[in-house]
Amino acid sequence: MEKYQATAIAHPNIALIKYWGNRDHEMRIPENGSISFNLGSLYTKTTVIFNPSLEIDSLEINGIQTLNSGLKRISNFLKIVREWTSTPYYAQVISENNFPMGAGIASSAAAFASLSLASIKALGLFLTEKDLSRLARRGSGSACRSIPQGFVEWLPGRDDQESFSYSFASVNHWDLVDVIAIVAKNHKSVGSTAGHALANSSPLQRVRVADAPRRLGIGKNAILQRDFNELAEIVELDSNLMHSVMMTSNPSLFYWEPATISIMKAVPEWRQQGIPACYTLDAGPNVHIICQSEYANDVVNLVNQITGVLQVMVSPVGGGAYLVEE
Amino acid sequence: MEKYQATAIAHPNIALIKYWGNRDHEMRIPENGSISFNLGSLYTKTTVIFNPSLEIDSLEINGIQTLNSGLKRISNFLKIVREWTSTPYYAQVISENNFPMGAGIASSAAAFASLSLASIKALGLFLTEKDLSRLARRGSGSACRSIPQGFVEWLPGRDDQESFSYSFASVNHWDLVDVIAIVAKNHKSVGSTAGHALANSSPLQRVRVADAPRRLGIGKNAILQRDFNELAEIVELDSNLMHSVMMTSNPSLFYWEPATISIMKAVPEWRQQGIPACYTLDAGPNVHIICQSEYANDVVNLVNQITGVLQVMVSPVGGGAYLVEE
Repeated sequence: MEKYQATAIAHPNIALIKYWGNRDHEMRIPENGSISFNLGSLYTKTTVIFNPSLEIDSLEINGIQTLNSGLKRISNFLKIVREWTSTPYYAQVISENNFPMGAGIASSAAAFASLSLASIKALGLFLTEKDLSRLARRGSGSACRSIPQGFVEWLPGRDDQESFSYSFASVNHWDLVDVIAIVAKNHKSVGSTAGHALANSSPLQRVRVADAPRRLGIGKNAILQRDFNELAEIVELDSNLMHSVMMTSNPSLFYWEPATISIMKAVPEWRQQGIPACYTLDAGPNVHIICQSEYANDVVNLVNQITGVLQVMVSPVGGGAYLVEE
Repeated sequence: MEKYQATAIAHPNIALIKYWGNRDHEMRIPENGSISFNLGSLYTKTTVIFNPSLEIDSLEINGIQTLNSGLKRISNFLKIVREWTSTPYYAQVISENNFPMGAGIASSAAAFASLSLASIKALGLFLTEKDLSRLARRGSGSACRSIPQGFVEWLPGRDDQESFSYSFASVNHWDLVDVIAIVAKNHKSVGSTAGHALANSSPLQRVRVADAPRRLGIGKNAILQRDFNELAEIVELDSNLMHSVMMTSNPSLFYWEPATISIMKAVPEWRQQGIPACYTLDAGPNVHIICQSEYANDVVNLVNQITGVLQVMVSPVGGGAYLVEE
């Protein structure tokens, strides 16, 4: 009996200008565009096996069979893959990460990016990068940013066709690194999908979205010009704006831990003392400290001295999603 | 030689709907109205002595002669008093607090409220409560709320004449208490006056101000109806909105400490578990936990278990500014 199998790897990404809130929840069309870079040293490797003999999808993450909401989300996504590709078969999905899940590192981004690429390949098909990005977006909005390489912009668009990501600067354009300070390892209490749905309950979301094109322009220009100070100011503002929306949603979302605040207060002081670094936080308590690679060791040493920091990971800018031989 | 001397006491106040940002910095006309109650167990006692033989104002706080910015601010205010009252004399000001200054308890409010009342009395004059409130406002915006008793509203007005506070519910209307969790005793790095001047640099201030009449209406109604849950939701939202503006100002203002976040996350959980309590923060790291007096002991016990809480103070609703015999 024939099986349709492929394996792909994708990296999570860290948004420098954030995605928060959808114009269309079902299609995951975001309220505003976003900018990110892939995290090259972190990855999710996903194998997909479409098998005519299966009567249900299955999911294994890091060696453990996953049921309930995790499987349901993957299965909903595979339904979209089946529709796109006119495939009748169910699939076995085997995924492994080298980083902690559900704590502010976009595990779903790498998961759905790798699953998208592996699924299309397994079925013997081909999609352009743009269309792969559109497909990944259906599983997790930010997954569309993990398809292209290097520095990536997600064009929000107004519908499914227009909403996709592309690389506006390559992996080697600027040797930035993300120094990730892990301050909590437990799963976050409100996931991003549920969080996005609350964005419009904050009186601040409207302003955050209206001001987004300005921030995107500044952020993209700062990256293209390799202007760290310009980037630092807009990245921190953008992160603070997103968390302001979260904290003023109904119910309010507080993703921060005590150590989160300690780091957020320390990083701008380091910058004033001559270490080019800035912070940004996704929907979780961990702090991503962006700096140029030559300062990575200094930043790691500084952040390790802060009470409540459990672990520090460092990642350079990474490539796009890719297939691996099995 | 004749001297003109009087002593007055005023309480600090805790805002339930916040003041942040001015329409007119010089006159301290606020962007939006605010609501507070006085903190009866905390006070500032101020003696003023206008003395024809003085050639300069002087200031003593808690037994220590104060120069530089502290004296300058008092002297600027005394200049206004001299203008209002056509008094040529300089003054000796002696002030004492029974609470820590500059760490999120409005020490300047109690200071300028007591100084206003003492100054007018020392000069043998009389002002209506409204005009005393207007005078106190010139020293520190929130000081105008420490003149009337109980639950107080500051009507923002559009000019000096229209901007004053009045009591809309008396001390005994509702037995709320403020359980104040002190998490830092050092002076805050950016004082409120400088902070107010930054409010408009946040893209969020405009929305916070535009939505203020709605929040004021809900807050005032909740107090008049003694509806704690209604009050809790709007008080926390209003505090989060103000701190959102602070964090997204340029430069950004982070008043929080690690323990601040711990308490902010804990209080809504206590409420869900049946303890009617809500948090609010002024321009400082300390957390004011508002609850009904019957729950004060429970709240004190709970907050004392949180790492980083240095001291806990409890205050009931207090009266207005008053004169004391010497």
